[in-house]
Amino acid sequence: MTGPLRLHPDRLFPTDPDARSIARRLYATVADLPIISPHGHTNPRWFAEDTAFPDPAALFIVPDHYLLRMLYSQGIPLETLGVASTDAPEAVPEPRDIWRTFAGHYYLFRGTPSRMWLDYVLSEVLGITERLSAETADRIYDAIAVRLTDPDMRPRALFDRFGIEVLATTEAPLDDLRHHRAIAESNWGGRVITAFRPDPVVDPEFEGFHDNVVRLGELTGQDTATWRGYLAALAERRRFFAEHGCTSTDHGHPSATTADLDRDDCEVLFDKCLRQQATHEDAELFRGQMLTEMARMSLEDGLVMQIHPGSVRNHNATVFARFGRDMGADIPGRTDYVRALKPLLDRFGNEPDLTVILFTLDETSYSRELAPLAGHYPILKLGPAWWFHDSPEGMMRYRHMTTETAGFYNTVGFNDDTRAFLSIPARHDMARRIDCAYLAGLVAEHRLDEDEAQEVAADLAYHLAKRAYKLDT
Amino acid sequence: MTGPLRLHPDRLFPTDPDARSIARRLYATVADLPIISPHGHTNPRWFAEDTAFPDPAALFIVPDHYLLRMLYSQGIPLETLGVASTDAPEAVPEPRDIWRTFAGHYYLFRGTPSRMWLDYVLSEVLGITERLSAETADRIYDAIAVRLTDPDMRPRALFDRFGIEVLATTEAPLDDLRHHRAIAESNWGGRVITAFRPDPVVDPEFEGFHDNVVRLGELTGQDTATWRGYLAALAERRRFFAEHGCTSTDHGHPSATTADLDRDDCEVLFDKCLRQQATHEDAELFRGQMLTEMARMSLEDGLVMQIHPGSVRNHNATVFARFGRDMGADIPGRTDYVRALKPLLDRFGNEPDLTVILFTLDETSYSRELAPLAGHYPILKLGPAWWFHDSPEGMMRYRHMTTETAGFYNTVGFNDDTRAFLSIPARHDMARRIDCAYLAGLVAEHRLDEDEAQEVAADLAYHLAKRAYKLDT
Amino acid sequence: MTGPLRLHPDRLFPTDPDARSIARRLYATVADLPIISPHGHTNPRWFAEDTAFPDPAALFIVPDHYLLRMLYSQGIPLETLGVASTDAPEAVPEPRDIWRTFAGHYYLFRGTPSRMWLDYVLSEVLGITERLSAETADRIYDAIAVRLTDPDMRPRALFDRFGIEVLATTEAPLDDLRHHRAIAESNWGGRVITAFRPDPVVDPEFEGFHDNVVRLGELTGQDTATWRGYLAALAERRRFFAEHGCTSTDHGHPSATTADLDRDDCEVLFDKCLRQQATHEDAELFRGQMLTEMARMSLEDGLVMQIHPGSVRNHNATVFARFGRDMGADIPGRTDYVRALKPLLDRFGNEPDLTVILFTLDETSYSRELAPLAGHYPILKLGPAWWFHDSPEGMMRYRHMTTETAGFYNTVGFNDDTRAFLSIPARHDMARRIDCAYLAGLVAEHRLDEDEAQEVAADLAYHLAKRAYKLDT
Repeated sequence: MTGPLRLHPDRLFPTDPDARSIARRLYATVADLPIISPHGHTNPRWFAEDTAFPDPAALFIVPDHYLLRMLYSQGIPLETLGVASTDAPEAVPEPRDIWRTFAGHYYLFRGTPSRMWLDYVLSEVLGITERLSAETADRIYDAIAVRLTDPDMRPRALFDRFGIEVLATTEAPLDDLRHHRAIAESNWGGRVITAFRPDPVVDPEFEGFHDNVVRLGELTGQDTATWRGYLAALAERRRFFAEHGCTSTDHGHPSATTADLDRDDCEVLFDKCLRQQATHEDAELFRGQMLTEMARMSLEDGLVMQIHPGSVRNHNATVFARFGRDMGADIPGRTDYVRALKPLLDRFGNEPDLTVILFTLDETSYSRELAPLAGHYPILKLGPAWWFHDSPEGMMRYRHMTTETAGFYNTVGFNDDTRAFLSIPARHDMARRIDCAYLAGLVAEHRLDEDEAQEVAADLAYHLAKRAYKLDT
Repeated sequence: MTGPLRLHPDRLFPTDPDARSIARRLYATVADLPIISPHGHTNPRWFAEDTAFPDPAALFIVPDHYLLRMLYSQGIPLETLGVASTDAPEAVPEPRDIWRTFAGHYYLFRGTPSRMWLDYVLSEVLGITERLSAETADRIYDAIAVRLTDPDMRPRALFDRFGIEVLATTEAPLDDLRHHRAIAESNWGGRVITAFRPDPVVDPEFEGFHDNVVRLGELTGQDTATWRGYLAALAERRRFFAEHGCTSTDHGHPSATTADLDRDDCEVLFDKCLRQQATHEDAELFRGQMLTEMARMSLEDGLVMQIHPGSVRNHNATVFARFGRDMGADIPGRTDYVRALKPLLDRFGNEPDLTVILFTLDETSYSRELAPLAGHYPILKLGPAWWFHDSPEGMMRYRHMTTETAGFYNTVGFNDDTRAFLSIPARHDMARRIDCAYLAGLVAEHRLDEDEAQEVAADLAYHLAKRAYKLDT
Repeated sequence: MTGPLRLHPDRLFPTDPDARSIARRLYATVADLPIISPHGHTNPRWFAEDTAFPDPAALFIVPDHYLLRMLYSQGIPLETLGVASTDAPEAVPEPRDIWRTFAGHYYLFRGTPSRMWLDYVLSEVLGITERLSAETADRIYDAIAVRLTDPDMRPRALFDRFGIEVLATTEAPLDDLRHHRAIAESNWGGRVITAFRPDPVVDPEFEGFHDNVVRLGELTGQDTATWRGYLAALAERRRFFAEHGCTSTDHGHPSATTADLDRDDCEVLFDKCLRQQATHEDAELFRGQMLTEMARMSLEDGLVMQIHPGSVRNHNATVFARFGRDMGADIPGRTDYVRALKPLLDRFGNEPDLTVILFTLDETSYSRELAPLAGHYPILKLGPAWWFHDSPEGMMRYRHMTTETAGFYNTVGFNDDTRAFLSIPARHDMARRIDCAYLAGLVAEHRLDEDEAQEVAADLAYHLAKRAYKLDT
């Protein structure tokens, strides 16, 4: 369907006129605060090299697994969308054809956050004034393609225009951080830091685990065939990351399981994992032990710890075989925190200098487990609504189900968690609007005074993330 | 409490005046669309014989397990409500006495969908203008009893007056479909089709499973004592059903477990089940295997597959012993889909020509499992809010928790799923109103433009059901 | 942040003007109904002795685990808040210093029910007109300290002023109920009754279980080393409690597990528990058996049974070791009811003269399990939103997720469940407002007529609790 593309200034605010006025007033005070992006997946190379982004399809569609999922679910083959399969890697369509397929199915995204993010990017970042559809596909493609050649559309210029104060990328321990070094050594002032994501070297079921651990030894000069050497190597890579601005680690495990084994058991288990003789249960136990080890190292080097558990990765065996990882076939499962975290909490739960930020894909845990845990343990904080729940309804449910038990100050503001750089302002804007809408509801129902809501709005939009991720220095 | 009975034209719409106006406009465009009822439990005999409905108690109360549940929970014996017990089958009260008991407890239904459906039927279908209560019980009973003798209150006349385009009933494979044949051979134009519900012949724990399988062999001339013959017999009955208009199958299993065993294991397992030597785990595995077999057959014959899992049937042992099945003692339990469906999805999840519609009684699965699954796998679609959740709040939660991840186009419109024929327009009206209310909220919050919402409203009310259930031919 | 403290008359009502007007009208009819408090943890000694309450810190902060949790979660040591640790029991700060620490962190409670309760107590009960903050801490401390010396601030005077018709405390079977006797023998007319909470003598994992059972024998003259004597002793203590006004029992088990073993198995299991040779599974089974035994005794003596399951008690090992029980480290887990309650329900589920009130900390069970169970079984009723969910959002979710299946009349009104006596009117007021807000929504959406909503509002605020807990005699 064709039509004009216009973002309404009151979008996402409550419909009741009084509540809407309050939301407007709150939002006005936070709309232009700088963006703190403490967790995400943009490519540091963009900012190191600062070259123009490629065509519209390569920029928007091919790397966005939200879009690929939805289109694939409606029977559109991934090949048609520019994703190369292992069996026919050459058969990739023209960018314009990919774009047309996408535009013709844009109606599928009605009511989804992807639609709102894309409309924001098209309108606010790229200046498009028509709704995307089969009819407007070509015109919009051409307009974007031209716009991308402008110097003010280069990564660093956009970073500055977006008002980003700090942006964290995510790298594995084997990464040499060359792009971060290049950025630091450049004359550009943008703050792009890394985050330490050790999954490839701490998860025995990760592809190439054994070789990764060997490589870790080579990089650090430690004997990673031993438990002691392995831990020393990890500690050393953490130091290396911290020297490149890193303030946090991130752990994407299938569950929140933690363990606190004694040293002998750790050595035996590590050995089994390294020899590739670990069962699924051994691997789970090892990952759990590594969370506790990472917490111990965090106490020493001060890195903030993030746990992103509960995704069954690569659920679709056929898609995984033909297209590889991260092609939209990750499906959440139930996640337990109360029992799973106990070993780590028994050991470090009351440490004043440790921060562990918990995320979930299982919304049932918000009010039952996460808010009670974060509302008690000094080390625990709640990360924002994540992934499938990084959406207007998802964020609203998050506030409704966590605030009454955990309050606002056991949460850590917003993460955009995205690889879609152009959408970063859209995502932060959505989060700020929803938080203001939630606060406006509290004020309109006389559950919070407006002056206090104003202070909270700024905390949620800016200060809490800065503080929780130790970005205030 | 006495009072007038009047349905408000704005019922179920948002209270905010702007959002309400939008809802009114959306609803006006879908209110009179024909009714597609692709899944339900009305009796085909009604339409084959077209005789008058009996008294008010037998029509409204005795067969409605929603009403029986609530009344029984408040200490009213089922016998008093006209349900015959096995120990005193004769002791059934007069219809008027049943009606009086019900009317005197009508206040129990405040805030429930049963109340809204009944008020709709009383007001819109039967022309009653007083609220049902102890005081008005007799007057209303008499008015209905008289009205039921009118020719325009016969099943076919109501079918036409309700604007039903197609109505599916549900039959077991052993059914001879005589009523459907009679309808087809009559000079009446109403489209009443069947759906294939094989539980009695694929669930080893169903009463009479062994005899049912023997009967299946007799009906088809296949040797159902062998795995191969059993499958052939099922395929044949599916063909027979398809010839009588059937476009879908339906599976009411205790869980969503699927399996994909090799042929030898299937034969051994089938043999065990047939000899009644299967454990509960064997039976569960067999049911799981049969879902995968049914999916395979669907690929061949094109029948759409529906899975309704997660009800613990006949939870109340005493009620089951005294009154039998379906007397309101079915209680939902937790349902897992992510692991349970994997065997079936590994085999058929990416087939372009297969449709599997998933239902749930466990609302926690909406945002955690079902929306992510349906938002990825081409074969999966989400059935509407089911049973206890076929209600204003339930339907609203369904949209709130599925739309952002699965969109609208991985859902299949509304099912009334009812045996209460007179309530069919009430139920579709409720669903259309709630969907318009939900869409109006999106429009009022500027998350969707009104022209697009209008298109979606019609899709949800009419087109999606028609398309998903292959009723457009 | 400083500012005035003023409770708005429309607080917690819907923001839409029409719905708000309806809520106001409904609330006006229930605001002044007497308070029925059928379940709570106030100290009967207060009413027996009727002496002045101590300082503000001892009254508000030290005994309130909601406050302690939140402050501790933000790194404030419990010692600073006046909680004595086992390793340094003397090191307790001055009340004024505790109060200052609390006041300086009052912003942490924004958006929580604790904040609303406290503001109510400060404003309505104590006459404070300034918001609590670091700046106003001392002034408010002084004002409260003075006010507490007034005769009209004594327990009995407040009980009368609060309009409490009946207040239940909770005692263990070993309690001699001396305070309740003293109240009964006094010339004061306030009705303070006890409730029978047998956890210390029916939970083999309760500290001191063995000694408690011995003590139970001494108190009753029964041989509690035998199963038969143990049951007789419990029945006798129930009678003793009933003589002191008790109308209900309460059971705080880790799960809702019930069991219905035969007598021999009970004897063996009891013996094992008494000899402290029970495994965790044995203990769980024993607790489950005891729920069924308690139900049996309830059938005999008429006591209403309450089950409060699903809390993992003392989750924080360090806090438990240093500060003991009930220091805020209880964390909910998943709770199953459908399978867990079946043994008890198979035995007693259809008894017309038994009432079992179910509570939950796992909100996922509302619509999936609890509403369907309570909407069917005659003995089951739903207790109100409990503990972490005794909050505006929590209560609203409770109504949204239970009403459509269980109706209003399978619920039992409000419990304040508190040890904070001064907050009792605040809590009942919050519940009445939320229920009126919910009902106003139904009326505004034309799902219920206002005259019926009015009747329901009074039932929820007053009549249902009185009836369910048999307090109408």
